[in-house]
Amino acid sequence: MTNQTAAMLVIGDEILSGRTRDSNMYHLAGKLTEHGVALREVRVVADDHDAIVAAIRALRGHDHVFTSGGIGPTHDDITADAVAAAFGVAITHRADAMALLGAHYASRGMEFNEARQRMARIPDTATLIDNPVSVAPGFTLGNVHVMAGVPKIFEAMLEGVLSTITRGQPLLSRTLRLDRGEGEIATAFAAFNAEWPDLQMGSYPFNLNGNYGTNLVIRGHDAVRLDAAFAALSALFA
Amino acid sequence: MTNQTAAMLVIGDEILSGRTRDSNMYHLAGKLTEHGVALREVRVVADDHDAIVAAIRALRGHDHVFTSGGIGPTHDDITADAVAAAFGVAITHRADAMALLGAHYASRGMEFNEARQRMARIPDTATLIDNPVSVAPGFTLGNVHVMAGVPKIFEAMLEGVLSTITRGQPLLSRTLRLDRGEGEIATAFAAFNAEWPDLQMGSYPFNLNGNYGTNLVIRGHDAVRLDAAFAALSALFA
Repeated sequence: MTNQTAAMLVIGDEILSGRTRDSNMYHLAGKLTEHGVALREVRVVADDHDAIVAAIRALRGHDHVFTSGGIGPTHDDITADAVAAAFGVAITHRADAMALLGAHYASRGMEFNEARQRMARIPDTATLIDNPVSVAPGFTLGNVHVMAGVPKIFEAMLEGVLSTITRGQPLLSRTLRLDRGEGEIATAFAAFNAEWPDLQMGSYPFNLNGNYGTNLVIRGHDAVRLDAAFAALSALFA
Repeated sequence: MTNQTAAMLVIGDEILSGRTRDSNMYHLAGKLTEHGVALREVRVVADDHDAIVAAIRALRGHDHVFTSGGIGPTHDDITADAVAAAFGVAITHRADAMALLGAHYASRGMEFNEARQRMARIPDTATLIDNPVSVAPGFTLGNVHVMAGVPKIFEAMLEGVLSTITRGQPLLSRTLRLDRGEGEIATAFAAFNAEWPDLQMGSYPFNLNGNYGTNLVIRGHDAVRLDAAFAALSALFA
């Protein structure tokens, strides 16, 4: 079985200006790894129609594209229209989303005003993504899953989307922490990787209180094989 | 004056697998905003030669490209070779970098072995970026600044690079925090933005202890005009 691949598109001036530190990428990466879907690329673009359209078109060759940000009620929320444009489909205040939001605001005695109705703009043929936090839905159009930027809402929407995606073999990893710099172990580590060509291996230096060390990470889909490689790696650098 | 534009390329399987949470993007975004350079796009790709080459080629239309990750001594560090390939220039163990690293290891009584020499692989015509933390240099090739992934080293290298880049007008911002949801203020905020078309405005919802609120952010280059707009915005929502 070959695992499905994915890309992410983060939309927002607030990320590119350094005002906000994105957390959705890190969250998505971990969840996809657990789910057995390979995240291959992430892009971050501004709140700019053409930039979003171009990025969606570039990324939709992956099995799934996950977007974050730009689906609220304000005039700078332009993601839904841009995704519709990327697919060349119409976008309207859709009846299903209008009903959902209308009932929500009615139950709270709040006005379902024009701005709030904006959140019911959903491209034709898209299916709604449930928002258990604040009702306003995301949507899936083709293989593109359009979700909110607020982390709590993004995470809740993602849970719903992942429940619809077939699990692949999770990418498992084992980490060996060494109190030695990379330069000391690099040659032996490369030779070791060559002996286990089916496993992905990476070396990640760290600096803790002025001391350099290295985390050697082995990744693969077969736990038994991974454990065997990890035992051999541990013995090599014991 | 038109500000220069920039893009960032983050290289690393460890980010895409969710093992490591990137911090260099957030750091770079803040520093560029202060410096008056507009960060327009970020991409994150795997430790994959073709993916890095394609991303460099796609992003180098910006005035500057900043990369993070993949320049260490281990076999998974392939950024320098990929950047050289993207520009079609040769890459060798360059004499200036060999001298720098050779002196460093000699002074510490450490072997300047083959793996460590790998960090002296620098593309032809590139200039070295100083690494005050751990000596192994980054490099600038054309308009691409190739830096380490370890945050402390990335940040130190960036400081050196920024000192060579002309400052633009810093993008200033003012934030008005409202204890109201976006749906309540969106229409008035859009009309307000239309009255100040030279300023960029964004609305960022938050959820604090179950209460929804909105940060309205105004951005521009002219502090006097920004203050005037902020006063008007504050009065509008008082």
